[in-house]
Amino acid sequence: MDFSLSPAQLELQQRTRRFIAEEVIPLERDERNTRHGPSEGLRDELIAMARRHHLVTPHASVERGGLGLSHVDKAIVFEEAGYSPLGPVALNIHAPDEGNVHLLEVVATDAQKERWLQPLIDGRLRSCFCMTEPAPGSGSDPSMLQTTAVPDGDDYIITGRKWFITGATGASFAIIMARMEDGTASMFLADMDQPAIVVERQIDALDSCFTGGHGVVRFDGLRVPASDVLGGIGEGFRYAQVRLAPARLTHCMRWQGGARRAHDVAADYARQRHAFGQPLIAHEGVGFMLADNEMDLHSARLAIWHCAWVLDQGGKGRHESSLAKVFCSEAQWRTVDRSVQVLGASGVSDETIVGRIFRDMRAFRVYDGPSEVHRWSMAKRIARG
Amino acid sequence: MDFSLSPAQLELQQRTRRFIAEEVIPLERDERNTRHGPSEGLRDELIAMARRHHLVTPHASVERGGLGLSHVDKAIVFEEAGYSPLGPVALNIHAPDEGNVHLLEVVATDAQKERWLQPLIDGRLRSCFCMTEPAPGSGSDPSMLQTTAVPDGDDYIITGRKWFITGATGASFAIIMARMEDGTASMFLADMDQPAIVVERQIDALDSCFTGGHGVVRFDGLRVPASDVLGGIGEGFRYAQVRLAPARLTHCMRWQGGARRAHDVAADYARQRHAFGQPLIAHEGVGFMLADNEMDLHSARLAIWHCAWVLDQGGKGRHESSLAKVFCSEAQWRTVDRSVQVLGASGVSDETIVGRIFRDMRAFRVYDGPSEVHRWSMAKRIARG
Amino acid sequence: MDFSLSPAQLELQQRTRRFIAEEVIPLERDERNTRHGPSEGLRDELIAMARRHHLVTPHASVERGGLGLSHVDKAIVFEEAGYSPLGPVALNIHAPDEGNVHLLEVVATDAQKERWLQPLIDGRLRSCFCMTEPAPGSGSDPSMLQTTAVPDGDDYIITGRKWFITGATGASFAIIMARMEDGTASMFLADMDQPAIVVERQIDALDSCFTGGHGVVRFDGLRVPASDVLGGIGEGFRYAQVRLAPARLTHCMRWQGGARRAHDVAADYARQRHAFGQPLIAHEGVGFMLADNEMDLHSARLAIWHCAWVLDQGGKGRHESSLAKVFCSEAQWRTVDRSVQVLGASGVSDETIVGRIFRDMRAFRVYDGPSEVHRWSMAKRIARG
Amino acid sequence: MDFSLSPAQLELQQRTRRFIAEEVIPLERDERNTRHGPSEGLRDELIAMARRHHLVTPHASVERGGLGLSHVDKAIVFEEAGYSPLGPVALNIHAPDEGNVHLLEVVATDAQKERWLQPLIDGRLRSCFCMTEPAPGSGSDPSMLQTTAVPDGDDYIITGRKWFITGATGASFAIIMARMEDGTASMFLADMDQPAIVVERQIDALDSCFTGGHGVVRFDGLRVPASDVLGGIGEGFRYAQVRLAPARLTHCMRWQGGARRAHDVAADYARQRHAFGQPLIAHEGVGFMLADNEMDLHSARLAIWHCAWVLDQGGKGRHESSLAKVFCSEAQWRTVDRSVQVLGASGVSDETIVGRIFRDMRAFRVYDGPSEVHRWSMAKRIARG
Repeated sequence: MDFSLSPAQLELQQRTRRFIAEEVIPLERDERNTRHGPSEGLRDELIAMARRHHLVTPHASVERGGLGLSHVDKAIVFEEAGYSPLGPVALNIHAPDEGNVHLLEVVATDAQKERWLQPLIDGRLRSCFCMTEPAPGSGSDPSMLQTTAVPDGDDYIITGRKWFITGATGASFAIIMARMEDGTASMFLADMDQPAIVVERQIDALDSCFTGGHGVVRFDGLRVPASDVLGGIGEGFRYAQVRLAPARLTHCMRWQGGARRAHDVAADYARQRHAFGQPLIAHEGVGFMLADNEMDLHSARLAIWHCAWVLDQGGKGRHESSLAKVFCSEAQWRTVDRSVQVLGASGVSDETIVGRIFRDMRAFRVYDGPSEVHRWSMAKRIARG
Repeated sequence: MDFSLSPAQLELQQRTRRFIAEEVIPLERDERNTRHGPSEGLRDELIAMARRHHLVTPHASVERGGLGLSHVDKAIVFEEAGYSPLGPVALNIHAPDEGNVHLLEVVATDAQKERWLQPLIDGRLRSCFCMTEPAPGSGSDPSMLQTTAVPDGDDYIITGRKWFITGATGASFAIIMARMEDGTASMFLADMDQPAIVVERQIDALDSCFTGGHGVVRFDGLRVPASDVLGGIGEGFRYAQVRLAPARLTHCMRWQGGARRAHDVAADYARQRHAFGQPLIAHEGVGFMLADNEMDLHSARLAIWHCAWVLDQGGKGRHESSLAKVFCSEAQWRTVDRSVQVLGASGVSDETIVGRIFRDMRAFRVYDGPSEVHRWSMAKRIARG
Repeated sequence: MDFSLSPAQLELQQRTRRFIAEEVIPLERDERNTRHGPSEGLRDELIAMARRHHLVTPHASVERGGLGLSHVDKAIVFEEAGYSPLGPVALNIHAPDEGNVHLLEVVATDAQKERWLQPLIDGRLRSCFCMTEPAPGSGSDPSMLQTTAVPDGDDYIITGRKWFITGATGASFAIIMARMEDGTASMFLADMDQPAIVVERQIDALDSCFTGGHGVVRFDGLRVPASDVLGGIGEGFRYAQVRLAPARLTHCMRWQGGARRAHDVAADYARQRHAFGQPLIAHEGVGFMLADNEMDLHSARLAIWHCAWVLDQGGKGRHESSLAKVFCSEAQWRTVDRSVQVLGASGVSDETIVGRIFRDMRAFRVYDGPSEVHRWSMAKRIARG
Repeated sequence: MDFSLSPAQLELQQRTRRFIAEEVIPLERDERNTRHGPSEGLRDELIAMARRHHLVTPHASVERGGLGLSHVDKAIVFEEAGYSPLGPVALNIHAPDEGNVHLLEVVATDAQKERWLQPLIDGRLRSCFCMTEPAPGSGSDPSMLQTTAVPDGDDYIITGRKWFITGATGASFAIIMARMEDGTASMFLADMDQPAIVVERQIDALDSCFTGGHGVVRFDGLRVPASDVLGGIGEGFRYAQVRLAPARLTHCMRWQGGARRAHDVAADYARQRHAFGQPLIAHEGVGFMLADNEMDLHSARLAIWHCAWVLDQGGKGRHESSLAKVFCSEAQWRTVDRSVQVLGASGVSDETIVGRIFRDMRAFRVYDGPSEVHRWSMAKRIARG
């Protein structure tokens, strides 16, 4: 058993930390931060900055220009990146691109990789992942998928509507999940600039950390050639799992940074702000909240590291990633909520970054499987003994 | 002991409920709802609508045009109004005007009442209450007040800076809390359209339910004549208490409506949305959250009613109102947070009103005394035995 | 709306409070307190003491010797009695006799009342209520009832096994719930001193506040004549509800006293015990726990009063009593658990009464419907809209 | 980073697990389990059994007959031992002997080691650690120490009273903490069979897992020669820290086993017991509790492993051990409390082992520093930045 970081991991951690502190955080109040996320221009600038530090798309394979990070490596780097809401944008490791890179590396053909994966890794374009549907379609329960893909000669015709599609506005291509006649699902690749793909609107979400925000996307009989099927027909649900277990863990990693930031800001404030004759932090009522933050942050980090290690050992980590997802999303949320409380008026506003983290993070208890669905999955595994 | 509502209370409850449902809720998506609250125009329209139902400023005395509501009456009406974020605006019972009306009725001179109270009750203008200061000034700890009032002949010269002044932008007059040379505090009335009063900026707060938002206000040697002192010189801290105990309870009342709304929206959704073969609500994981909502809502309402009754009996209700404030702000928050969770994607966005209630309500655990300060006050009373 | 107590209620409250303080609490360390509850001798002595204050079986009708208390009256008196673990024994208002008195008053024939109810009210004997069965029988789910009642001429033959039968050892008679051939259930009255009734053993439970403890009872073909059927054949499940809604509320009332006692003991200790330079209670970490106790106690009391009032108005109170049961059992438990924590070493032992209350109270979250079953019931009502 | 166990650790884990399952658990219902812990005879038998598996005092150095376990090794073995309340007795790793072995190995002279440490490691006798005092003495705040040691020639005369001295009854020797005239503290070794040492009584504590229970011990002018001073005069507070950081972590380890046991028993029950048409575990209300148990158990184990690794690296681990102590004592408690709830009637009694674990474990949130003191310590470290 060994909890130490290797020299290479330490170097990467420190490099990322410095980059975020010195170059990214100063841009947090840039006007190009919109309610639907950092603008494309701000994103391009951030990626260019990260490139100078060799930190762009670090989880991609070395062959394709990444650093070939292991899951544990990612745990370390992504936490540092997440310390700023702009960090994951700068490193090109935000949802959904981060998970799409992983999925394409595992499943795509060489031709597909050249066409879509390589520019994605290079940070030259963005992608989206079209799975979630409005009621009565597929939300927490993937079996309720309503978007259909119907064979037509060598092509497939895709019809349906998706929502909360992160980054849809401005994405260059989409991975689309659709239902086959036999009840299985398949994934399809498609460029977004086609008349049969309509981004109906952007949703006003609590968060504002994803470039392009979240869109409602309609497929009006989109024609997809067989060559653009991602992996095998009928394998969609299986690939969704390939993507989801690591993807939900990388959310934990990034938000770990966000929660740590909130705690640091709150602790600084509590050291400096006085009330009733002493610094806030000397009041047990405040100090205990900060101690609880440290317990939550420490426990969440250990859960992430452990699950990442399981994945690095070749495990599927379905139980571990469910557990980590619920635990982290709740522990990190408690941390941010307490930080807001410690900050008082400053916390419930944009006077500090914490109010933004608060808005940005709430959805994490919902996406990639709400806490309730993961608890249910865990219970079913326990039931099997 | 009797938990029943009188026929008059029931009539008022139903009238307000219908008004909110039929006339106010349809305006919730009106474009005049801005990040800094409903616009003045929207506010005027809402008040005009409420006037047609004889529901404007109902807590004011009958002589001045209100309904002379008791505290228990207010508990009933304000909850109904709070069912929409626009309801308290329509009824002219929102902070800070609601509390200012109460304070002026108790403390102001007849001349002051004619000049400032009457148009406030009539809904013709708005006011603000300038107490909170940025660090190192007065936040949770009122004794840290830094804004000064220095006698100059028959006048007072006020210098200092306040922040999180709700409704400052657009307010016609202010009640200003300032420190005297002897360490006591006094309250002053002043029209806002004076060069010595500068609203430096509006703060980007999580909430957007107060007309005018929250401002930073600077007093650059503001000259106030003796006739505009509110009550006696040196009585400021005592008057703050006169205002605060009922004011914090009316927050509980209004947010009770907001929390109930969130629960109703979530319960409706859970009845209709299916997942894993049955309606969401048939899943215990969801149903239990809604049951917990009912427990929190019921307990919070009883705490409000009880404290209101204590005030109606002539009690100061300092302990009861502290208790109700902490309990309600936390129970109502839990209710809204669970409602967000039940709604999933819809909850973490503006697809329903719940996302807005979530943003609007977070600050309630902070303002009018954060939970920690009230717990401390309660502990000190317990310590005295 | 009115939260005041009538003069008669105040007198009864004070009389009970004094009686508990002066006569009952001194017996808490009497050696006749055994792990299976106060001995019969101690019980007799306590009842004799209460009789001198006209406080025995106060919930029984005036005609039969009680005080004819309303539900709200009971809320007041039972809380005072519960302030000592021996109080409910002294007043003859403990489970299961308290609920059995209520059930018999509503359902029994005159002859049954003379034979069984009157001596029960007089405190001359004890009873038990035989419903719960070990797996795979009837626990939380009453429909799993396995004990059978088979007609045999004018009689019924009862066969089966029950457990956690409070007060079985030493009880003079039992009310037995058994299943009919058509799947309905019936209730039967039977004297315990019959060879066909065997108390197999006493269970070592966490609590030790019920005289006779909790027993395992076997019915070996017990013959019951038709005249000893309680109410109508096939009405058992309905009568169980008649008994349960008020019975679960009286548990709330009694434990309200217990939780208040724990809090009082902890607060006294925290005022006197010093650590780190000041009384414990001056530490926010301790003071906040006591403030939380007050919030829980206050909220639980209001939930009890409200539900009692609903029952007094003639309501069935199924939703209100479910809500009150979950809320109180959890809020009172939190109060006792915090009191233990404040007391430290003294709390986790019998150095004060709090350790005993802790052991006695844990089962309340389980019996008369565990929290999970009540949350489920509430959710089903919400689902119906 | 590496979360794997070495082959030697796996072998030790499995050997201990089998021993507990096959030989120790069958003795859990032995009549020699008393309210003041396993009897001396039962303890001797258990140690003899463990000796056959080479598992006695495994944390002692190899030279003195132990296995020389690292802290991480201990984390693995002690969790397995803690799976039964009798396991730590069998392995001779229970408080206070386990910590005393550690302290004596670090601080004692060779002569002291021969006389007291060796037989303690051999399991031939027991010891106690006399630090805690009743009010107004030293509880959570060690500076309030009242027991005095006054020099008298080459000897010291010790006078004072201690309580909650685990294992005092039946212990062969004591380590005594006493205050010097200059306000420092020292530790002294003394055989218990001296007239000047009086075990006044045994305390009726919630737990019953420590042989000898918890005693009140009085020192009536006990004369201790200079040769029996443990370490240097005036170094008592420093040695207390030497003992406490690892000692509090070994509590976490042992109770980790207890909590896992409770969860396993509850999960088994929930798989087999049916209600409302399906196994309990298929009800989300139950399944979610078991999922929460897994999250708590997993997080607590990781916190233990991490802190043990820090200690193995030579760190003092004061922050980590405070954090682990609070986190584990609360997470393990939640696990046991939920297990009780899942078990229902069986849980609130001795029908399963879980009721006993519930009683045994509550004090862990109090001893070796209550949660509040550790949170305070953590807050003070955060305050220093």
